[in-house]
Amino acid sequence: MAIIVKKFGGTSLGSIDLICNIAHRIALEAGKGDSLVLIVSAMAKTTDELINLAYQISEHPSRRELDMLLTAGERISMSLLSLALQEEGYSSISFTGSQSGIITDERHGNARILNVNAFRIKEELEKGKIVIVAGFQGVSQKKEITTLGRGGSDTSAVALACYLQANKCEIYTDVDGIYTADPRIVPDAKLIPALDYSQILALSYNGFKVIHSRAVEFAYKYNIPVEVKSSFTFAPGTMLVNEKSFKEEDMEERHITAIAHKENLISYILPETEKSIHLLKNWNWEIFKYTVTDQQIELIIEDKYDKEIRYLLNQNEISILKTETGIGYVTLVGLGINLDPSFLAETLTLCHPFHIKRIQHSEKTIELMLPSSEVKDCVCTLHSAFIGSEK
Amino acid sequence: MAIIVKKFGGTSLGSIDLICNIAHRIALEAGKGDSLVLIVSAMAKTTDELINLAYQISEHPSRRELDMLLTAGERISMSLLSLALQEEGYSSISFTGSQSGIITDERHGNARILNVNAFRIKEELEKGKIVIVAGFQGVSQKKEITTLGRGGSDTSAVALACYLQANKCEIYTDVDGIYTADPRIVPDAKLIPALDYSQILALSYNGFKVIHSRAVEFAYKYNIPVEVKSSFTFAPGTMLVNEKSFKEEDMEERHITAIAHKENLISYILPETEKSIHLLKNWNWEIFKYTVTDQQIELIIEDKYDKEIRYLLNQNEISILKTETGIGYVTLVGLGINLDPSFLAETLTLCHPFHIKRIQHSEKTIELMLPSSEVKDCVCTLHSAFIGSEK
Repeated sequence: MAIIVKKFGGTSLGSIDLICNIAHRIALEAGKGDSLVLIVSAMAKTTDELINLAYQISEHPSRRELDMLLTAGERISMSLLSLALQEEGYSSISFTGSQSGIITDERHGNARILNVNAFRIKEELEKGKIVIVAGFQGVSQKKEITTLGRGGSDTSAVALACYLQANKCEIYTDVDGIYTADPRIVPDAKLIPALDYSQILALSYNGFKVIHSRAVEFAYKYNIPVEVKSSFTFAPGTMLVNEKSFKEEDMEERHITAIAHKENLISYILPETEKSIHLLKNWNWEIFKYTVTDQQIELIIEDKYDKEIRYLLNQNEISILKTETGIGYVTLVGLGINLDPSFLAETLTLCHPFHIKRIQHSEKTIELMLPSSEVKDCVCTLHSAFIGSEK
Repeated sequence: MAIIVKKFGGTSLGSIDLICNIAHRIALEAGKGDSLVLIVSAMAKTTDELINLAYQISEHPSRRELDMLLTAGERISMSLLSLALQEEGYSSISFTGSQSGIITDERHGNARILNVNAFRIKEELEKGKIVIVAGFQGVSQKKEITTLGRGGSDTSAVALACYLQANKCEIYTDVDGIYTADPRIVPDAKLIPALDYSQILALSYNGFKVIHSRAVEFAYKYNIPVEVKSSFTFAPGTMLVNEKSFKEEDMEERHITAIAHKENLISYILPETEKSIHLLKNWNWEIFKYTVTDQQIELIIEDKYDKEIRYLLNQNEISILKTETGIGYVTLVGLGINLDPSFLAETLTLCHPFHIKRIQHSEKTIELMLPSSEVKDCVCTLHSAFIGSEK
């Protein structure tokens, strides 16, 4: 009997109708006899609403209490989904992160998983129940409630799949899988049926939202079969795989696989002092990119964290030498494209209309920094030239 | 019956004694009944001597004639190895790249493999012969002799392993495998028994010499089992693998796997003009890193190519805005280390004695640019702090 772990994000659980729709589809699958473990996020907007409530009380709420507050979100969605499955005639049970044995370190708001000890899930599966688990949350060794930070539910799902030695981990989302670019920006973007971990990792680090980089890193590390697919249609999506299949033609061909982007970033330039280094040592926020030059540390971060970052720097008596808002990034991803400067040359030619501030590269990316306002046009231009529009 | 592809580099074939030693060890293995295909580089120093001869005749020899000249190097080593095997009592036959059906594009000096059509190798294996193939070389569709550029023999070996659907591709070299740092610099460096493709790729792009990044890219793309091992001892070395094994403790732990370095680099800053872009489109040299900022293109390249690069720029009427010599890089490699700024903080603290010019990062690297003269000390310092000395 196969064990399948399925993760549903907030937009997939955004209303009672959507929850009932998912329960109905799961009921159809449950009839086949597989053991099902469902990881849920909070219903769309719930988390933002809860955060908003906290900020109405305190300008800088403690992260411990925020964790306590936010974890209420998954309690709501998991119990509702469990009720909907019971209405479908199935036996189901919901567990918090703590009850599921997701043990984390102490970093409130951005905890990392140390270990999983989900014997309660195993017991309930053996009784034939569908198990629903709150994503995004865990418990520290001191029994404090923690949250896993951005992409936390994806990470919970992959960690549980790993512990349970699941046959598959399915990440359900509001798009059909991984596309060659964000289909909301590039209508011609194509669904990629199978893609290797290392390229997905590069895409997710550089702005692809359908699966979080932490979860990809985890899946790669422990070799967990993952599929990203639509929660509306349940149709086949994108499989994360290890290798490509053998191709006879042009064995060393290199091409751009997909284009990631990120908008609304802010750059902070800090002096490289002991205080700054100390702060980085205990840093708890997601950094998109950093660079160190001439005793200055540049941090590039999503601008929605601006207020918190400034407060943090102020509290630690670190002066900001310079900030710049409205920064965007467009990143080309493809195996070995850095080894062939003709990709850089073509990018430079195509990007003539845009105000490119900087281009860097890594093992499988070419990364363009440009004004956030030009990101969408730039993605469209590069997609049409490098990937094309044929479906 | 298994097919094993074994590649021997120039230092492994550097003298008649070494060639006879390898023939003897292969004879011991050949007795087990596997089909053996041996890919050879030119004997150590042969290539440099041939290049030197060419430059005595012409200051800027044509790359087509250079290819013709250099491919003599593998003819020598392969025929000598074949003779040594025959002395051992085995039946063997040597083939050039062209005879082996390694079809490439037209880029002399840096050709890429388009296809492999090695039916002659198959035929000879079926007759029970040990087949020896000249690495590093191929033939274009117009029947021109080409060479595959840096790391070419590794790439030949992996490409043939792919075509032959070999059970294993072994890269024999003058060290025991992949270490946590260059053991000539860090005596405490540890041999890594198994490492995943994506980290090896990051290491080889950033200066690890035991296997070339092109070959790793190829092996990753086509999922070829590769082992890097010593040509002196034939002892187990480093396996290139897809996944790590399951670990119960600290599942999301991140750590530095290994440290790569590169010395003696030179930086050229060029204006971002149409001429520069055109040159990059047809570029044929290995670039270590590039950055574009403020309409300026910075290329960082090994300084041994300096004369050729300057000639090329001059020929294309591209002015150099600035050059800087004596540049080095030290690169920390580890899955997800970019997501945890405490690695950056610790690096900054440790690197206090060095003159770090720039720090950047990618999905799995932290890259330090510093004076070439400080590279070795920096590698030792970081290795001792991040990886440690216990064997």
